[in-house]
Formats: sequence, C-alpha cells, structure tokens
Amino acid sequence: MIFSSFEISSEQKINVQIENHIKEGIEKGILQKGDKLPSTREISKVLNVSRNCVIIAYENLENLGIIKSLRGKGTFVSTEANTIDGDLTISWSHMVNDYGNSCRDLDIIKTELPWKRGMISFKSIAPDESLFDIEEFKRSFLNIFSTEGDKLLNYGYAKGYKPLIEYIKKYMEDKGINVDQKDVLITNGFTEGFDILLSTLTKRGDIIACEEPTHNTAIKIMKSHGLNIASVPMNFDGIDIDLLEKTLKEKSPKVLYLIPSYHNPTGIVMRGEKRQKVYKLCERYKVPILEDGFNEELLYSSSHVAPIASLCVKGNGVIYVGSFSKVLFPGLRIGWILADKNLIDTLESVKRARTIHSSFLDQAILYNYMESGAFTRYMKKIRKHYRDKYNFTLQQVKMYIPYEYIWGEGGLHIFIKLEGVSGREVLKSCYNKGVVFMPGDIFYNEDNGSDTIRIGFSRVTKEDIEKGIKIIGDVVKELSYKI
Amino acid sequence: MIFSSFEISSEQKINVQIENHIKEGIEKGILQKGDKLPSTREISKVLNVSRNCVIIAYENLENLGIIKSLRGKGTFVSTEANTIDGDLTISWSHMVNDYGNSCRDLDIIKTELPWKRGMISFKSIAPDESLFDIEEFKRSFLNIFSTEGDKLLNYGYAKGYKPLIEYIKKYMEDKGINVDQKDVLITNGFTEGFDILLSTLTKRGDIIACEEPTHNTAIKIMKSHGLNIASVPMNFDGIDIDLLEKTLKEKSPKVLYLIPSYHNPTGIVMRGEKRQKVYKLCERYKVPILEDGFNEELLYSSSHVAPIASLCVKGNGVIYVGSFSKVLFPGLRIGWILADKNLIDTLESVKRARTIHSSFLDQAILYNYMESGAFTRYMKKIRKHYRDKYNFTLQQVKMYIPYEYIWGEGGLHIFIKLEGVSGREVLKSCYNKGVVFMPGDIFYNEDNGSDTIRIGFSRVTKEDIEKGIKIIGDVVKELSYKI
Repeated sequence: MIFSSFEISSEQKINVQIENHIKEGIEKGILQKGDKLPSTREISKVLNVSRNCVIIAYENLENLGIIKSLRGKGTFVSTEANTIDGDLTISWSHMVNDYGNSCRDLDIIKTELPWKRGMISFKSIAPDESLFDIEEFKRSFLNIFSTEGDKLLNYGYAKGYKPLIEYIKKYMEDKGINVDQKDVLITNGFTEGFDILLSTLTKRGDIIACEEPTHNTAIKIMKSHGLNIASVPMNFDGIDIDLLEKTLKEKSPKVLYLIPSYHNPTGIVMRGEKRQKVYKLCERYKVPILEDGFNEELLYSSSHVAPIASLCVKGNGVIYVGSFSKVLFPGLRIGWILADKNLIDTLESVKRARTIHSSFLDQAILYNYMESGAFTRYMKKIRKHYRDKYNFTLQQVKMYIPYEYIWGEGGLHIFIKLEGVSGREVLKSCYNKGVVFMPGDIFYNEDNGSDTIRIGFSRVTKEDIEKGIKIIGDVVKELSYKI
Repeated sequence: MIFSSFEISSEQKINVQIENHIKEGIEKGILQKGDKLPSTREISKVLNVSRNCVIIAYENLENLGIIKSLRGKGTFVSTEANTIDGDLTISWSHMVNDYGNSCRDLDIIKTELPWKRGMISFKSIAPDESLFDIEEFKRSFLNIFSTEGDKLLNYGYAKGYKPLIEYIKKYMEDKGINVDQKDVLITNGFTEGFDILLSTLTKRGDIIACEEPTHNTAIKIMKSHGLNIASVPMNFDGIDIDLLEKTLKEKSPKVLYLIPSYHNPTGIVMRGEKRQKVYKLCERYKVPILEDGFNEELLYSSSHVAPIASLCVKGNGVIYVGSFSKVLFPGLRIGWILADKNLIDTLESVKRARTIHSSFLDQAILYNYMESGAFTRYMKKIRKHYRDKYNFTLQQVKMYIPYEYIWGEGGLHIFIKLEGVSGREVLKSCYNKGVVFMPGDIFYNEDNGSDTIRIGFSRVTKEDIEKGIKIIGDVVKELSYKI
C-alpha cells in the first residue's frame, strides 16, 4: 500500500502531506490512472491520523481532478503521470529586464560586508529608536482608533489622509512656501516620492543634474530609470555655482535634484544667498528643481534657512519632497510631495496605479501625533541630543582620524575626506577589527570619492563612538604610512 | 511705511506673513535695493504683534540674502526686484511622459460620475468595515507594541516582517503549494505586487495574456506599462480552453494573468479539472502563470479548490500574488508575492528601490492578529455574512433585473449580462435616480462588455440592495422596450 512506509511530519498540515504523497506517487508512476486508492478509513488507521484529515485530502485531490470517487466502488486515480508532473520551469533570471537588473545590481545591501553581532556600525543614519516617544505614539493610536478605527482600516484616498495633507500644507506654508495653487501627495517616504516623480517625468536617456556626492538611494533610482546623471561637484558651502551654470547651459537637464539642508552625505547646509543664486540660475535656464528636504527638520547647529521652494513665490517650478524618516518613525514610511496642484493630480493617479494609497492607519496616527504637540516636544528633545552627539563625534574624529577636510555642520553623520587613503581599504581593515561604516564612493556617480568615508553616529553609543573612531583612525594612519 | 496698510490674518504664522509682505514689496518695486526697512520695534508696534515674530521674519529674510542688517545702522533691502520674482514656471503637463499620462487617463475615479450623499452605491467591492473586529485589532496593536514598538517604528527589511513572512509561507503551504525553493515578498497590497512584477519582467510592447473580462486595475497597470493585452474570452466556467491554447500557441505571451477564485468581475470559480488543463497548457507552451488569489479567502458557496500554484509541484513557473484586502483591513495595504526564491531576491531589490519596505507596524499588527486566531474567527463570521448577502442580492437581481445570464457563484459582487441594453445607458438613468454601480465595459480590454454591469453589495444594507436593484431593474426594462 502506498502509505505503508510514509511518515507524518509535524511541520505541515496532515491533509497536505497526504495530498502531496499521492501526487508524488502518480508522478513517479507508482500510482497509475485507474488504480484504486486505499479507503479513507484504511489510511487513517495506517497513519494513525483522524479520518477527517484524509477525507479533506481526498476532497482536495478530487477538486483538482487528480482522483475520482465512485459511489460504492471506491476512489481511483483519474489522471496520467505527466498531467501533474508540475514541471513548469521558467528561467526567471533571463526574464528580468534592465530595470530589475539595475535595481538588484545597485542594491548595495546585497554586496556589502555582512554585519556581525558585536560590531560597531557607523553605517546607519536612521534615528535612534530609543528616543522615540512610544507612549505618546500609543496615545495617538488609541485616540484616533477609538473614533475612526473601522474607517481607517478600509480603503482610503490615493492622495492621502485629508487632515494630514492639510497639516503638512500648513507646515510647509509656515516654512515660507507659497502653497497657493499647490497640493500635497502622501507617499511611502522620500523613496516612493522620488521614484514616482522620475517615473512620471523622465524617460530613459534623459539628463538629470544633481550635486556630487549625493544621496546613494537617489543615485540608484536615477540609474535604474536609465537617466544620465550630470553631477555638479560641491565645495565646502555646497554645489559649485559656476559648474552648475555650465551644466544647466550646456546639458539642459530635465530636472535639478538638490539636498540643500544637511546634505547627504556631506552634512552641508546651503546658505540663503547660495539658495537664491541656484534658484535664479534655474529660472534663467528654465530647469525645474526637485528639492529633497529629508533632513530639513534636523537643523540644529545653524539658524533656520527657508527651503528653495520658498523662493518660488509665483511659479510652480520647485517640487519639494519631504519626509520625517530621519527623525521620526521611518518604519511607517510616510513622506510627501508638495508641488503644482495639476501635477499632483497626475501623480495621484500614478500613486493609485502603484500602491492605491499609503497606510491610512499610519497616516492618521502620525497626524494625531503631530497635531497633539508631541512632535514639537520630541523635536526639541532630539535636536539637543543629536547636536551633542554630533559635536562629540566630530571631536573624536578630529582627534583620531587624519583627514584632508571635513565638510558640513550637522545631520546624523560626518563626511570625511581622507588624505589619499582609499575608503574601501580602510573599511576592509576595520571590518576585521569589528568596525563598519559607509565607503564614500557610493555617493558618487562616477569613479570619484574613493578617499572619502561617511560616519553615521545616530545609533551608536558614545562609548562605541570613541572606540570605533579610534580603530578607524589607527587603520587610516597605518595605511597612510604605506602610501 | 510699507506696513501701514497691512493686515495680519489669523490663517498663517505672523513671521511668514511679514516675510511674504516684504518679498512682495521688493517684487513690485515698492522696496528697492538699498532701501532702509522699518525697525523690528516699529513694525511690532504698527502691527500690534510681538517683536519676536518680527525678529524671526528679519532673520529668515537675511538668511535668504534678501535683506541685510548693518550693526548700528539698521536693516536694508539687499536684493534687486528680479532676483526674487519667483517666476520659475514649468509646463508640467508637457513634461509628463506616456506612463504618467496613461495612469491619469486610465484612472476611472477621475472620470466617473461623482457620488452624492444619499446615493445607493454598488460600485465598491471593499469589505464592510462594520464587520471588522476593532477590539481584536486594538489588542493586537497593544500586544505587539508593548514588546517591540520602538523597533517597529524604525527601518525594517525590504522583504517584510519576518514572522509575517513565515506565517504566510506556512499558510500557502497549507493550501497545498510546495514552498520549497520559494520565498515571500510583502507588498503594499495586490496592486504593488502586480506593478513590481510587470516592472521587473516585461517591457513596452510585450504581450500579456489574461481572461476577458478581468480586474480593471490590472488592465490599467498592464496598459500603463505599454503591454499588449491578449484577452481570452471566458465561458460560464471560466477561461475558454481552446482559445487559451490558440493564444498561447500563436502569440507566445510573456505571462498569463489569471484570477481563478471568485474572479473579478464575473465571480466564477475555476474548477479543479480546468485548473489542471490551464496549467498543462502553460507547461506545454512554457508560459509562466501569474495567479491572482485576491478573493481566495472568500470561497463560501463552493468547496475549497487548491490554487493553480499547487499544481506546480516541482517547477517555479507560477507566481502567486495574494492579498487580504477584500476581506480584511484594505486600508493597511498588505499583500504578498510567493514565487521562486531567486526571483523574490530580485523583486526585493525592486521593492527597496521603490518604497524601501511596507509599514512594519502594520505588518506586525496583522501578523499578531492572524497568529492569535482572531483571523480564523473573523473569517468564519464573514463567510456566513457575505454568503447570506450574496444569496439575497442574487435573488433580488433575478427578481427585478431582466438579464441574459449571470455567471459566477460568489465574491462580493454579481456580474450581469443584460439583453443587449447598454450598461452605460442604464448607469446614466440610474444615476439620476440615486443609484450607481460599475459599468461592465471597464473590465474589458477592447470595446466589449458594453451590455454588462457589476453590482458590488458588500457595503450596502439589505434594504438599500432591494431598493437599488428594483431601480436598476426598472431602468433596464424601460431601456429594453426602446430597442
């Protein structure tokens, strides 16, 4: 009997095991079309399982047309071996297109050295979750859930949760932006906002201008969209104005992508006068600006500088992409696009065609959290915390790591230009000593930045910062002697 | 003085109003480069606002390089009118590409007749939120939040929340699918799963085969990706096998997209024998299957039929896209792709390049809700509820609406083939009588289905179902006489 040497495992539902055993028997030719199967009673006895399990298995197989019960006669195999050999095999790797391949190839997580327990990691620039107001968040959940929980769990609107949209509009207006004729689309963080914008406004081969270095995820997305990146080098105070003009003039890029506040990876804050110059150049050459405000909220070691979008008083040429993910709850994936309202209308349709909308529950909790004042209190607390930590890290870096220069004035990271030493080489040695960080070259479009590194400190204790920076410093010194 | 006729509004932060007023003054030429501005003290007096607001406004303008304070001398305009005219104007509609345009043009919400308060709407096939277990959901939130709240609010993994992935793998295994060499990617619902798959596996001009009619969002996404849809007509028992073979043979589509359970819009459940035939054809012609299991959980008027993916015992040629959105919490936007593990590895990178990951909080709550047993209890309750409602609606339809045939046996909707009467015409008349539904033609690729309509009943009360169906019936009868 087909079940005599069969052993039941505790890993899987019993009926599924019985079904698969019979399917395999047919595949292997042990059971042939027309063969009579043991009765459900027999199987349940042999395997010592409930008869009901066997009945379910038989029903499922019969529903699939694999076996057939004939009243009073028993159950029979009703299919040939090759009808269920189940061998539809596709070479997926050959089917993946350019876009899929570049997303995979540019996915640095897949190639970087694996983190091991106990390592000191300066890779992340995510916020420190131990600073989150868990209790305030819970309160916001309970507040919002008691009044509209059922509605929040059903479908919402592609554009976003209305009170949050209104809140963000006001918030942007308070930054000095003219929100008249503008609208907001809620996205799954900066990443989705940027991806939707490029998907909607560019085509393969288009030129997009940006700072060099710049946010590595942005580089990945631009490349995966097949765009040609026109990188404009930065100086200590941000993008080089003369080279920017040259690029705008000679290359006519479709868009200029900028991170004016606490730039990633350099930490530079572009001063107001420079913002004005950049804006004026774009006006002259009619190039729209995509302003990435991801770190806007973190400004702690300099006074507030209004977004570039605030300079575009009458026009519609600046798109602002915002996110709280570097300070608040990145796990929720809530960001936004503020742009011309007709453009938002189109982007809303794109959003609907991609994810329908962002989680309404998360949007509503975030709204309640912000509206309650908890956000302001939290920001006050963390600005001080991260400022202190930044200063501490900077001091350690200056003490232990020989460098050519350090740009920027804040953020959750420090970007270091080494004196001709390869960042990758330093990383390799440090990895063996239990310290990891980001090699700076990932923030460059071409083969630049090989002698730079980025130190993210937000989730590292002061003790480990000191220890880790010392180790990096020792390695840099050692490698310097070899040059 | 520039502020003498200025009125403060309560709508906006005072400093922003002051900033904008000065910017406008410069734009209009009322203030010229070198002009001295009133002191902060004067302005605060004239406007009767705190001096601090004015100081902030001046600081912000100075940061932008628009004005300049000279110690002991006062504050002066430091910019020309045209430097801040802010007139960077872009014709976005000309920049939107084919993809963006088709997403907008195919976004039926933008063209359909607007819902008005008091109307009876048979448009939705979303679940009825009044059936959600709000209390169980809250309990799941509190459970999961107390143990890992801080971590859930920080960045997670692109593939998804591990316990949920494991749960879903087991869940799919229990449906008879061999999950060995397979993996799961959590997506923002079916829509993101389908969109990511098409983005990764197809290119413009590729042929994709599917049932006709089929899910209108799927049609939208296929078209927005520039795919050529090879529609295979359906019979009362699902896709026409002979025409499917002809399509697979002659057109060699890249993928076959199918909704075997409670098909949208027809409600047809493809029987096991037919599933086997379809699968065998795909095996013969080496065409991978994209199985949409969106309504799988709802099977209530027929015995369970295993997914087509369960027939692919040894191969990797069936991709299953699942979602609970038609039964459970669509507002959370949680779905999944089960596929070959190497393919999932690539799709994970695509997901990371698009939204980084789906909300970890939502994934964790959903996991806890399912794992606690609440999901099973809920499904038991709603299966009965919707079965009763389906039978009730079907009875009403048969009683009041003259039809050629009604296919299917369940789901949250009933699809009706009228006798030569235009669904759009019926809708137009019904709209004026306060009743709306989905015209069937939106589920067809070409100009077919003009005499079909879809009635979604999940969120309509029995009283309104009866009332609404009667009205539709009267309109259909009236229009029939005219033919």
